[in-house]
Amino acid sequence: MSAKLKVAVLGATGYSGMELTRLLLRHPRVETPVLLRRAENSNPTKTALGGPPSASGNDQINLADIFPVLSGNGNYPLEPLSWSSLKQKGVDLLFLATPHEVSRSLVPEAVAHGMRVIDLSGAWRLKQEQHRAIYKFKDDDAATAAELTGKAVYGLPELNGDKIPNATVIANPGCYATTVILGLAPLLKAGLADKQKGIIADSKSGVSGAGKEPSARTHFVSVADNLSAYGVFTHRHLGEIAEQLQLTTDEITFTPHLLPIPRGILSTIYVHLKHKIRAAEIESCYREFYKGKRFVRVFQTPKLPEIQFSLNTNYCDLGFCLAPDGQRLVIVSCEDNLIKGAAGQAVQNMNLMYGVNEGEGLL
Amino acid sequence: MSAKLKVAVLGATGYSGMELTRLLLRHPRVETPVLLRRAENSNPTKTALGGPPSASGNDQINLADIFPVLSGNGNYPLEPLSWSSLKQKGVDLLFLATPHEVSRSLVPEAVAHGMRVIDLSGAWRLKQEQHRAIYKFKDDDAATAAELTGKAVYGLPELNGDKIPNATVIANPGCYATTVILGLAPLLKAGLADKQKGIIADSKSGVSGAGKEPSARTHFVSVADNLSAYGVFTHRHLGEIAEQLQLTTDEITFTPHLLPIPRGILSTIYVHLKHKIRAAEIESCYREFYKGKRFVRVFQTPKLPEIQFSLNTNYCDLGFCLAPDGQRLVIVSCEDNLIKGAAGQAVQNMNLMYGVNEGEGLL
Amino acid sequence: MSAKLKVAVLGATGYSGMELTRLLLRHPRVETPVLLRRAENSNPTKTALGGPPSASGNDQINLADIFPVLSGNGNYPLEPLSWSSLKQKGVDLLFLATPHEVSRSLVPEAVAHGMRVIDLSGAWRLKQEQHRAIYKFKDDDAATAAELTGKAVYGLPELNGDKIPNATVIANPGCYATTVILGLAPLLKAGLADKQKGIIADSKSGVSGAGKEPSARTHFVSVADNLSAYGVFTHRHLGEIAEQLQLTTDEITFTPHLLPIPRGILSTIYVHLKHKIRAAEIESCYREFYKGKRFVRVFQTPKLPEIQFSLNTNYCDLGFCLAPDGQRLVIVSCEDNLIKGAAGQAVQNMNLMYGVNEGEGLL
Amino acid sequence: MSAKLKVAVLGATGYSGMELTRLLLRHPRVETPVLLRRAENSNPTKTALGGPPSASGNDQINLADIFPVLSGNGNYPLEPLSWSSLKQKGVDLLFLATPHEVSRSLVPEAVAHGMRVIDLSGAWRLKQEQHRAIYKFKDDDAATAAELTGKAVYGLPELNGDKIPNATVIANPGCYATTVILGLAPLLKAGLADKQKGIIADSKSGVSGAGKEPSARTHFVSVADNLSAYGVFTHRHLGEIAEQLQLTTDEITFTPHLLPIPRGILSTIYVHLKHKIRAAEIESCYREFYKGKRFVRVFQTPKLPEIQFSLNTNYCDLGFCLAPDGQRLVIVSCEDNLIKGAAGQAVQNMNLMYGVNEGEGLL
Repeated sequence: MSAKLKVAVLGATGYSGMELTRLLLRHPRVETPVLLRRAENSNPTKTALGGPPSASGNDQINLADIFPVLSGNGNYPLEPLSWSSLKQKGVDLLFLATPHEVSRSLVPEAVAHGMRVIDLSGAWRLKQEQHRAIYKFKDDDAATAAELTGKAVYGLPELNGDKIPNATVIANPGCYATTVILGLAPLLKAGLADKQKGIIADSKSGVSGAGKEPSARTHFVSVADNLSAYGVFTHRHLGEIAEQLQLTTDEITFTPHLLPIPRGILSTIYVHLKHKIRAAEIESCYREFYKGKRFVRVFQTPKLPEIQFSLNTNYCDLGFCLAPDGQRLVIVSCEDNLIKGAAGQAVQNMNLMYGVNEGEGLL
Repeated sequence: MSAKLKVAVLGATGYSGMELTRLLLRHPRVETPVLLRRAENSNPTKTALGGPPSASGNDQINLADIFPVLSGNGNYPLEPLSWSSLKQKGVDLLFLATPHEVSRSLVPEAVAHGMRVIDLSGAWRLKQEQHRAIYKFKDDDAATAAELTGKAVYGLPELNGDKIPNATVIANPGCYATTVILGLAPLLKAGLADKQKGIIADSKSGVSGAGKEPSARTHFVSVADNLSAYGVFTHRHLGEIAEQLQLTTDEITFTPHLLPIPRGILSTIYVHLKHKIRAAEIESCYREFYKGKRFVRVFQTPKLPEIQFSLNTNYCDLGFCLAPDGQRLVIVSCEDNLIKGAAGQAVQNMNLMYGVNEGEGLL
Repeated sequence: MSAKLKVAVLGATGYSGMELTRLLLRHPRVETPVLLRRAENSNPTKTALGGPPSASGNDQINLADIFPVLSGNGNYPLEPLSWSSLKQKGVDLLFLATPHEVSRSLVPEAVAHGMRVIDLSGAWRLKQEQHRAIYKFKDDDAATAAELTGKAVYGLPELNGDKIPNATVIANPGCYATTVILGLAPLLKAGLADKQKGIIADSKSGVSGAGKEPSARTHFVSVADNLSAYGVFTHRHLGEIAEQLQLTTDEITFTPHLLPIPRGILSTIYVHLKHKIRAAEIESCYREFYKGKRFVRVFQTPKLPEIQFSLNTNYCDLGFCLAPDGQRLVIVSCEDNLIKGAAGQAVQNMNLMYGVNEGEGLL
Repeated sequence: MSAKLKVAVLGATGYSGMELTRLLLRHPRVETPVLLRRAENSNPTKTALGGPPSASGNDQINLADIFPVLSGNGNYPLEPLSWSSLKQKGVDLLFLATPHEVSRSLVPEAVAHGMRVIDLSGAWRLKQEQHRAIYKFKDDDAATAAELTGKAVYGLPELNGDKIPNATVIANPGCYATTVILGLAPLLKAGLADKQKGIIADSKSGVSGAGKEPSARTHFVSVADNLSAYGVFTHRHLGEIAEQLQLTTDEITFTPHLLPIPRGILSTIYVHLKHKIRAAEIESCYREFYKGKRFVRVFQTPKLPEIQFSLNTNYCDLGFCLAPDGQRLVIVSCEDNLIKGAAGQAVQNMNLMYGVNEGEGLL
C-alpha cells in the first residue's frame, strides 16, 4: 500500500474531532483530511458541531479560527457534507465526531454510499437492546439499524483486533469504557474475579469529556476547586462495559466523577478474587494478555499510573495493588480521554483497517 | 440605633448577590434579608437573576437549592419583587446585584418608593456622558436619569466616606476599579505622578468576575491552563477609574486579563514619578492617606501582596516597588473581587449609611 | 460559664493549625489564643512546626508573617512552649497541630501538668496495637502510653458525643476517616451492610491534606492537571476507620487519591446490602441517626454532595444512590479537610468539653 | 548532509531538559541522544540535575523512571559525563539544561574538547558586565570567560539567524526574554517607540519556569488560586532584554508574575509611540519584520493570542491593540515557556547550526 489514505472528518469543531484532526494532519500515511460541516440547511449553533454559526451559507468556516493553535500552517476550511463530493475526492473513510443522534442517522447513509466509517459517538456501540434503550433512538429504520448493529465492530483494538481490519463500521469505544474494559479484561478472561461479590469502577474524568457546549456544569467556577460524582448506576458507558466484559449490570458498579482538569481519566477498579493469589501472578496475567499490544503499558508493582503519565499519548496505563489478604485487587487504569479514549483510538482503528502499522502517527 | 436593619436583595442567585447574602446572614446588625426575584411575568432564565426557571408562578425558588453550601440552616425562599410588600415589611434598603440594564430601570422605581439603594452594577457609577455612552442605556427618562446621576454616590468608602452616610443611591464600585483607584489615589493626590508619561494598570481577575452565565469563554476547558487579555482600551471600568482619579482616558491605560482561578484580582500598576523619591516616602504617603481606613492594608516594602492574602476578606492590599532610578513605581493591588470588589464593599457602604461600625460583619 | 476560655495552640504555622487559629480568633467564647512554638533548643525548620527558622532565640516569629491573610488586625507572636508560663496564664486547654511523633511525646507531658489536650495528629487515635504499629512510636514509656491510650477519646462528636465532655485527651479524627466513618456508621449500626462482600471507600483529597512541607509530590507541576492514587491498603487512616466502625481491615478497602485542588475531600463509598431495600429507607436510616447532629447534612436523594458545598464550613455532607437491584448502595461523603476534617472538628470538641453550644464559632 | 546528528543532553531530569529530550527523540534528523548525568563524585540530589539520588555509583538511572510518560519505548539510561566517551561516540553537539553555575564551568571544558554547545541557562547570554553581575560567577578564568563571552551567540533565530550557523556556543534565550524581545524588536527597529516615556513588560508565567526543585513557593497550595508578582526591577532576564533590544534598564520595566498553570507565558507589553499611527501600519511593520520566520505568528487585529494557543508548539504569538489616541500600543506576546522559551528554541538553533530545515522536528 503506497498511496496515502483519503479520509474525511465531520465534527472537527468539537474537542475529540479537533484532536483527531491534529493527529491526522501529522499522520505520515494520510492525506490532509477533508473537514466537513453539516449541510447548509442546518443551523450549526443548534447542531452537533458546536461551532459558531456562519452568517450565511457562503461564509467559510476555518477550523483555525475556532482552534487558533492550528493557525500558521495554512487554512483548514470546513466544507458542507456531500456524498458525491466525497466520492469525487476519492474519500473512502469517514470519521464522525458527532453527537450520537447525528451518527445514528448518518452512518446508514455513509454505508449506503459505499464508505467505511469510524464513529466516535455511542450510536453503534451496543448490541443488546437493554443497554441501547438509554439512547432513545427514535427515527431508526428497523431493518437497517439491525443490520448495521450486527455489522458494527466495537473498536477496541486490544480486544477485537481480529475483526477491525475488515470492518465497515467501527464503533469507537467510550472514553471511560476504554479504561475500565482494558483494566478488567485479562482478569475476567483468566476467570480470577469473584463476580458474586461485585466489581466496582470508580472513574474520574477531566472536563473535556463533557463536551464543548457551555453549561452551568462546565462553568469554570463550578468545576474549579471541586469534585462531583454523577450518573451513578445510569451512565451510558455502563452498557458498553458490561457488554464487552460479558457482565450483567448487577455485577459491575460504575461511578463517574468530574475532575477539575481539562483532560485525562483515572479509573480505580476494585475486584474480589476467587482465591488467594500473589502480586506477581496478577502482573504476569496482564503482561501475557497485552503481549504485543503496544498501547497498553503494564506498570511494575508497586508503581501506579497517574493521569499525567498518559496525557498527550495513546497509552492506557495499568497498575495494581493487591491486599495483604491476597484476595482483593485494586487496578488503576489511566488514559488521555481525548486520545486513547477517543481520537487516538480512532486512528489506531484506521491503521488496522488499512493495513498500516498500528502505531503509525501515534508515537 | 438598636433595632436591626431590614434589607432586601435582588439578584442573590448570581455570584455577587450570593456572597452579599452570606455576609448579610451573619451580620449581627441586620435581620435575615428579604431575598427577591423579579416579578412573575418575567422569565427568570432570561433575566438578570440567572437562576433556574420556576415551572409556574407558584413554585418556590430556594436559594439553598442553587447554592447548596447554604443548606442546613433553614430555607432561603426567593419572593417576587413588590414595592408594597417591601414597604409592609419595613424594608428601607434595597441591594441590587442585577445586570446594569435592570438596575438602570429599577433604581428610579425604588427611589420613587422612598427606598435607599445600593446598586452593585455599573448603571449609576458614571457622571460623565462620554464614559457612560458605553452602556447604551436606551429607555432612560432623561430628567429622572439626570437627577439620579447627580444624587448617586460612588461608594468607595476610602475616598467618598463623607458622602456615603446621607446617600440615597450608592453606586457600588466595579471590582477592577476598586483595586486601581485605591492603588493610585494617594499618589495622585500627592501630585507625585508624571501623568504625561502615562499610567498603566495591568489587571488580572478570577472567573467569577465574568458572571455566572455559561459561555464559551467561561467553559472550564477554555480557562484552565490559560491566560488571556481582553477589553484592552474598551473595558467599562476604565470610565470609573478615570472619573474617580480625575484622569483622562489618554492618561491611563487599563488592560484586564482572565485568570484560571475562581476569584481574586491582582492589579499591577505602573507610574512615572515627577522626581526622584525614596521608597520610604512612597510608603508613608500611602500610610498617611489610608490612616484609619481599616480595609486597606499597606504592605511594608519590599513585601508585595498576593491574591491569596485577601481572599475571603474585605481588604484591598497594596504593596510597592521603586525602580533603582527612583522615578518609576510599581504598585501591586489585590482584593477578593466578590468581597471588597462587590459584596463586602456593599456591606461596608451599608454600615456607613446606617451609622453602624464600618467593619461590622466584615471581620 | 461566663468567663472566656483560655487556650493555647502549638503548630499554628501548619495548615490545620492556622485554620484552627482563625476559628479560635473569631470564637465568641474564647480569649485570643496563646500561640506556641517549640522551645529554643529545637530548630523549627527541622521540626513539626514547619515554619521558617528564627535567626536567634530572641527573634520573634509572627504568624501574620507566615500567613499574611492574618495581617491588619494586630500581631500574632509565637512564644516558646513553657508549661509554667501556660499555667501562669491560666491556660487549661492545649491544641496540638503537630506531627504525630511530637504529639506522642507532648501529650503525656501536658497531662502531667494538668492540662486537657485536643491533639489533631494520629498519635492517640488507635486503641488496637495492630493498627498503631504503622506509626512506629519508639520512645514510649509503656505504662504512660497504655494509660493515655485508654483515656484518649476519639473526638468524633456525632459518634462519641457522650464521652467528649469529660475527656482529658481528645484524639481529633483523621480527615479521610471522618468522611468514611460518618458515611458508614448509620448503615452498619442498622445492620444493613453485607460485610462479607466487602466495603470500599474510594477517597479523593485536596493537597493541603498532605501538609505544608515542600516535596516533589506537592510541587504544583506534579499535582496540576493530574490525579494519583496512593497508600492503597496501607494508609494510616485505615486503622481508625476499622476501629471506629468495628470492621476488620479485610472487610474494608480504602484508597486515597490526591486531587489538584487546595482543600476538600470527597469519599465515594460502596456497600452491598444484606437484602433489598428502598431508597427512602436508606435516607431515613441516616436522618434518624444524625437527628440533632447539626454538622452532618443528609442530602435528599437523588441529590449528591460536591466538594464545593462544604468548603469553608464544618459540615460533613452525605448523599446516596441505590442501584436498580436495591442491593448496592453508593454513599458520597464530603467535607472541608481542614475544618470538619481537622480544625473545625477540634473546635466542636472544645465546645462540648466546656459546655459551650456545639456550633459556637462554627456557623 | 545525510548522516543523522549525534547529540548529548546534560540535565534531562529537569523540565526543560526533559522537553528537549522528547523533541530530540522524535527528531527525524537526530540519533537517539546520549543522556548524561554529572560524574560519579557529585551527589545528584545536591546538584543541578534535580533527579533522585542513585544509591551507588553503579546504579543506573533511567529517565523513564523520573518521567514515566516516557516509558513503553525502551530505556533511557543516564550515563556519567565523560569527554572521552562523548568523543568516542562521535557526539559533536552538547545541550546543557543545567543551572547557570554548572553551565558556566562546563562550557569552557566542552569547547576545549572541541564540542559545540547549546546552553539553556543564563550563563553565557550577557555581554555587558553590568547585567552579568547579578549571576555572581566566582570561579571564572578571566581570559577564557572573556573569550567565550565574545564567541557565544544569543540564540534567538528570528534576530540572530545569521550568526547561529557558525556558532560554537549558543546561549539559548530566557523564556520571559523571548516573548518580550520578539514582541518589541520590530517596533524598536522601525524607530516607532518613544523610549523616553518608558516601555513596560508585564509578564506572567506558568510554574515550570520556576524549576523542579520543591520549595514553599512552588507548593501546590501556595500557587493554586493565587497570582503573585516577583523580582520586580531585579529579575535576571531584564539584562538580556535590555541588551538584545539596545535599551537601558531605565527605559524598560519588567515585572514577572507566577501563574497557577504548569506552563506557558503571556507578556503584556506597553509602548508609547513617537507619533500617531494606524493599526494596520503596526501590523504590517511586524509582518514585514517576521517575513519568512515560521515560528512567529502575527495575529490579525483585533485578535489577541492566549497562552493555550501556543502550548505544546514552538510558536511565539503576537497580537496588538492600539489606543484610540493612536499613540499607545499594547502588544500581547505568548509562548510555551518550555518549548519556544527553552527546548524548542534550542532545537531550532541546532537545526540552523547543522543546515537542517529550521522547522524540522518542531511542527
